[in-house]
Formats: sequence, structure tokens, C-alpha cells
Amino acid sequence: MKALIVGTGAVGGFYGALLARAGAEVAVVSRSDYETVRRDGIHVRSPLGEWTFRPAAVYRNAAEVASPPDYAILCTKVLPHIDRPALIRDAVGPDTAIVLIQNGVEIEDEIVEAFPDHELISGLAFVCVSRTAPGQVWHQAYGNLMFGDYPAGVSPRVESLCAAFDRAGVRARAAADIVAARWRKCVWNAPFNPLSVLSGGLYTSDILQSQEAFVRTLMGEVCAIAATTGHPLPEDVIDRNIEDTRRMPPYKTSMLLDFEAGRPMETEAILGNAVRAARREGVPVPHLESVYALMQLRQRQLDKRPS
Amino acid sequence: MKALIVGTGAVGGFYGALLARAGAEVAVVSRSDYETVRRDGIHVRSPLGEWTFRPAAVYRNAAEVASPPDYAILCTKVLPHIDRPALIRDAVGPDTAIVLIQNGVEIEDEIVEAFPDHELISGLAFVCVSRTAPGQVWHQAYGNLMFGDYPAGVSPRVESLCAAFDRAGVRARAAADIVAARWRKCVWNAPFNPLSVLSGGLYTSDILQSQEAFVRTLMGEVCAIAATTGHPLPEDVIDRNIEDTRRMPPYKTSMLLDFEAGRPMETEAILGNAVRAARREGVPVPHLESVYALMQLRQRQLDKRPS
Repeated sequence: MKALIVGTGAVGGFYGALLARAGAEVAVVSRSDYETVRRDGIHVRSPLGEWTFRPAAVYRNAAEVASPPDYAILCTKVLPHIDRPALIRDAVGPDTAIVLIQNGVEIEDEIVEAFPDHELISGLAFVCVSRTAPGQVWHQAYGNLMFGDYPAGVSPRVESLCAAFDRAGVRARAAADIVAARWRKCVWNAPFNPLSVLSGGLYTSDILQSQEAFVRTLMGEVCAIAATTGHPLPEDVIDRNIEDTRRMPPYKTSMLLDFEAGRPMETEAILGNAVRAARREGVPVPHLESVYALMQLRQRQLDKRPS
Repeated sequence: MKALIVGTGAVGGFYGALLARAGAEVAVVSRSDYETVRRDGIHVRSPLGEWTFRPAAVYRNAAEVASPPDYAILCTKVLPHIDRPALIRDAVGPDTAIVLIQNGVEIEDEIVEAFPDHELISGLAFVCVSRTAPGQVWHQAYGNLMFGDYPAGVSPRVESLCAAFDRAGVRARAAADIVAARWRKCVWNAPFNPLSVLSGGLYTSDILQSQEAFVRTLMGEVCAIAATTGHPLPEDVIDRNIEDTRRMPPYKTSMLLDFEAGRPMETEAILGNAVRAARREGVPVPHLESVYALMQLRQRQLDKRPS
């Protein structure tokens, strides 16, 4: 299996290293960390072990890629200013499957439009991992993956990809309706990520203790959008999310970590896309709309500050 | 006219100084600034002039007040931990009218319950004034007042009070429906005050440029509550608020100034009371509910920080 990881941040570095450990030939496209990754590889510290991943090749961009991979795996953040098709276009051959390990809902259409004839495997990571320095990845907890063909189905290539990750030590599950899985993850992300930022830095446990009813209302609105788009979620999805959160140790969301570190936040992929889907489908989501409006104000204030 | 000003912050210091200038005998209750105010009086810097207000008497608390005033004028903030009836109880005689120059909606009932047999004059200040140090008041702009009997009407005592302030150089208007006037002020306060804080410090002009539709939605919910409680506001109240805000110079709300200075915010008086009124009346206000939930989270985070 020949894989190309695009983006050597936390997610790309970690899952690229795992694929290599499973025996795949893994090259990487590294923009900002090119020099370090080329010279030293990517060092992984994890409950699964500590090792250095030396990519089969390190490229500055897709145009340098010598021969097309079986899987072109996009691991960047989903941000308005990142042109995701452009990041992989020159590396995609006629038989390359495009894989997303990225956050958010409704993030696939941009890729489908750019590559209408390619298999698109949409994937989610449930992981606590951070890039502590260029070429340094710290995997703290969790790590499960979920992959499925977009818009639906499980192809042999999805099965192979899951099997490879399974061999490397994380649980990778094939999902026949990956879009529903995205909405299900959004049930948690859409409230907790923005609320952690807008509150000025509360842990998930504090948010839940203080405003459980509000969190449940936001979750209910996400469920309503999911159902209207043809992906109804299980009846108990809200209760289970609340119970799971209550059992977690006090947790800083990824958006809060980005906010505190001055990195861009995935507001549009997670919250903006959900709200836009609701507007398109005519689903009233006044509480999500309010949180989204406030996140846009928060972002405006961040954009105004001298960097 | 004998007046007792309770609270010598920005509002109390400024309007007490004006009443004295109009010839009234003005004593003050000053808790935190007692020593300074007793020794030096209250220095006022204002477009109306610069002068020192020397109160007829300075008390630490209402129990020290020798003889009851004609008007006991509460000028503190409205905060959950401030027991407003207790602040004036010992100074209120049988003929004392109680006056509020305070922010918020539905802030009168606590006073009515404590003093059911006294005239209650509810008042609003439209003013940009700050306390720059103990006994130092800086009046920057505006200054108009509005007074009316609670729950409704304009008594001779209201007229006298307005006349005194008029003599002192600010426009004081008698309002037959002061409750409607409070709701009208809330139309502006309920969106702009919390949004300025939750955005991390935006000026009113930025909020309006970025999220005018959201601001209008919040204003519409305040209008709906006001109408349901029997105080319908003029049809054009939202348009006029938007236009007035657009004409204002970039403006930091009072809640933002409090937030930035680490002072308590009047979230409950302005936003919490509006939301509670909506719940009581069965008016759906999902956007105000969201903003209120977020302000409570923001407050929780502030309460957690080491002071």
C-alpha cells in the first residue's frame, strides 16, 4: 500500500507514522515543517510506544510527488483559506483514492467537485494528539478512526485502509453512512468547541455543570439538521454524549487549544457548515445561529488584534 | 429639597453633584469611598463644568442618617449580591420617596416588596460617566434622565425631581410609563452589552458591521417580551436603535468597561431579568437565551480565576 499524507501536523504525523508501522510505504507533503521532517522524520510519543517515523519521501508540495499513491490522505485542518483540492491535485493519479481525516460536516462536496471521478473516503479521528514542535507529535489518548465511502458505502479500499490502521494498533471502523457519523460527532463538537472558547476557557466539565440544558438544546438542533438531511441519529445520542462527557476528565476542546495557542479555529467546518445546512434545509436552529454569530464576532476581534 | 444619594460611584457622584448645584441639600452614603468623600468631597469633571461637590453629610451607611430625606436615591449597580432594600431601609422615613437611577428591567419589585407604602420613582440615566478614582467623577457625554412613578404615572414629586435636574443642566424627562422606557433601553442594552463582552472586546460599530441581523433578532425578542408584559414599543424602535448606533462613534459598552476593569457586570439586571420575564410570559426568546447562557459561562470562568 502506497500512501501520501498531506499535512504533517498532529493528525497527519500520527496516522502517517501508524500506517508506516503497519508496513505501508508512506510519503508526506509537509509545508511548514519540511526541513525538520526531511532531516529528522517525525518523532511520535504515544501510549502505543515511542518511535521515529521516517517517511519514504518528504515533499514540499504535491507537484513534487514522483508517482501517484493508492491513497492521498488529507490531514490538514479545514479552514476557509486552505484550498484543499489544490493541496493534492498534482499527486492524484487515475487510481488514487482520496481520503479525508478531517473535522466538520459537509466538507466533502468541495473535493467531489474537484475530483468527480475518484473514490472519496471520508474519515473521522477520535483522538487526543498534538504537534508539540515541528516533527514532534504527542499522542495523549484515544485514537480510533472511522472511514466510509462518500456519500455512502464501504469499498474494498476502505476495508484495506481500516485493516492497516488496525494492524498499527488503533481501532479503525468502516461506516456505511459516514455522513451520519460526521453529524454524530458534530452533536458533541458544535456545542462544546465554541462554548469552551466563548466562555473564555472552560473545561467541558464546567460547561456541563453550568449549562447542561443549553448544551442539550444545541445538540438537539444538530440532530434535527442531521435528520432533515437524511441521516437521523439514534434516539439516545444526546443522553449518551452527555453521559460520556460527564465521565471524561476535565477536558479542553481542540478549538479551545487552538484559540489559546493563537491558531486558526475550525469554526466554519464544524459550526458554520452545520448552520448553513440548516438554512438550506429550512430547519430552525436559533441557538446554533446565536453561537455561530458570537463565534464570528469573537473571530473578528481576534483578526483585529496586532499579531 | 433634601436628597440622600446612596452609592458614590460614577452615577451617584455625578447626579448628586448636579442636584446640589440645583440648590438641593444633598447627603451621601458612601461605602468604599467614605474617607475620601468625607475629606475632599466629590470632584466632577464634565462638559457642564468642573467643580467639587461637598455633600451636606457623608455617611458610611443608612443607619447613620440623622433625619429622613425627601428622596432616597439608589445609584448603585444592580447585582445579585447587593441587597438594595438593606442599603436604604434605615434612612427611609414615612414621607421619603425612593428613587432608582439604575440599569435593567423589572428591578422594581424587590423595592416595592420591601417598601410597599412608599412612592417609588424609577429612573434611567443615559450618560457616559465614570469614576476614575475615589471621589473623582469624569462625565464624558450625554446625561439625560428619565423618571416615572412605578408602576406608572407622574406625581408632583417626579415633576420636582425632573425640574431640579433640569436646573442643574441635564435634561430630565417625566415618563408616564417608565416600565416601557426600561424595556426600550433594554432593546439596545440586551444585545450590545453582552456581545461586546463575549466577542472579547468589540466596539458597538464592529458588532453592528459584523452581525447586524443577529443584533436585530435579539432586539426583536426584547420587543416581544415588552409587548407581552403590556408595554408595546414603537414599530420603528429597532430601526432607530440601529441608526443611532451607526451614527455613534465607536463605543465601548458599560458592561465591556466593567469586564475589562474586572468589575462585576450587570448581566442579571439587563439580560437575566429579560429572559426570566420571557419565560414567565411564555415568550420564546432562543437567541436571548443563548446569549444569557454564554454570559453565565463567561461569568463562571471569571469566578474561577484567582483574583
